[in-house]
Amino acid sequence: MPIVQIEMLSGRTLEQKREMVKEVTETLVKTIKCRPEAVKIIIREMEKQNYAENGKLYMELP
Amino acid sequence: MPIVQIEMLSGRTLEQKREMVKEVTETLVKTIKCRPEAVKIIIREMEKQNYAENGKLYMELP
Amino acid sequence: MPIVQIEMLSGRTLEQKREMVKEVTETLVKTIKCRPEAVKIIIREMEKQNYAENGKLYMELP
Amino acid sequence: MPIVQIEMLSGRTLEQKREMVKEVTETLVKTIKCRPEAVKIIIREMEKQNYAENGKLYMELP
Amino acid sequence: MPIVQIEMLSGRTLEQKREMVKEVTETLVKTIKCRPEAVKIIIREMEKQNYAENGKLYMELP
Amino acid sequence: MPIVQIEMLSGRTLEQKREMVKEVTETLVKTIKCRPEAVKIIIREMEKQNYAENGKLYMELP
Repeated sequence: MPIVQIEMLSGRTLEQKREMVKEVTETLVKTIKCRPEAVKIIIREMEKQNYAENGKLYMELP
Repeated sequence: MPIVQIEMLSGRTLEQKREMVKEVTETLVKTIKCRPEAVKIIIREMEKQNYAENGKLYMELP
Repeated sequence: MPIVQIEMLSGRTLEQKREMVKEVTETLVKTIKCRPEAVKIIIREMEKQNYAENGKLYMELP
Repeated sequence: MPIVQIEMLSGRTLEQKREMVKEVTETLVKTIKCRPEAVKIIIREMEKQNYAENGKLYMELP
Repeated sequence: MPIVQIEMLSGRTLEQKREMVKEVTETLVKTIKCRPEAVKIIIREMEKQNYAENGKLYMELP
Repeated sequence: MPIVQIEMLSGRTLEQKREMVKEVTETLVKTIKCRPEAVKIIIREMEKQNYAENGKLYMELP
């Protein structure tokens, strides 16, 4: 712990995920003073028909 | 916020999802008095082998 | 299933929660055709210092 | 309720999932005294590029 | 990983939680063949006004 | 979206949370190219009796 769950639209590259988990981990180590080995990150990718804001599916937002 | 996560069996049509997020959003606006733009909904679809009740996978329930 | 998780700011009344779960359940039954007994709803209430948008804690948003 | 969410790497067999949900349910019934019908389990399978520890994607861990 | 999230009504004793996490961990090690150190368990306790089934708050279920 | 859920032990100061959400947001904007307004962060604080590793409650880990 900390355990981090990140939901985002699918389509990011492997390189973007690699950079994201590296930097999110460093940020947590620095700001809340935890050990880097303790940080676990789960990435969940969503299709545009599985996320909604303001009552509309993301695929239909302007 | 509010942020809503809905787990359901896969297989619903796009039209059903569209209607669901529209009406869940309206319901929250009406009952807990939030702005519609503030409502975010994540839909997660499960296969029948990834959900269990009473110790049995859903695919094996009667 | 469906299993619904709703995160919202703390401070809603019992009556608002009662109405919310009743109507969210009816909405799901109607839009995705499930049985009402199958709908489970978890409500999680957040303090204003435990939610952030745009890099700012909610308690500090304008 | 209890509602259990299990994130694990993808790749387990159907037989392993079947055994897992059976035994996790029995364990909860025994230790926290709930009815077996009340136990719901959601399984979420992750790809090795969607989980990180110590700032590294699982696919890149030694 | 696996990462397990368990939502249950508040009110279980420390001894029940201790037994629960010990046995759930053993069950996962046995059924899905993971290392015990890899199993992380998050327990979330709910008040009876924050869980609903069949459109009714748990505190009002018969 | 992205929507980030962070579980951590309770006890961090307001200042630490403020810094954490600011920097996690900046990190996501930079690494996965999203707008800062789109980043939502939910913080959940856990007591030491509600988290377990290796079959033991955190309060009992060495």
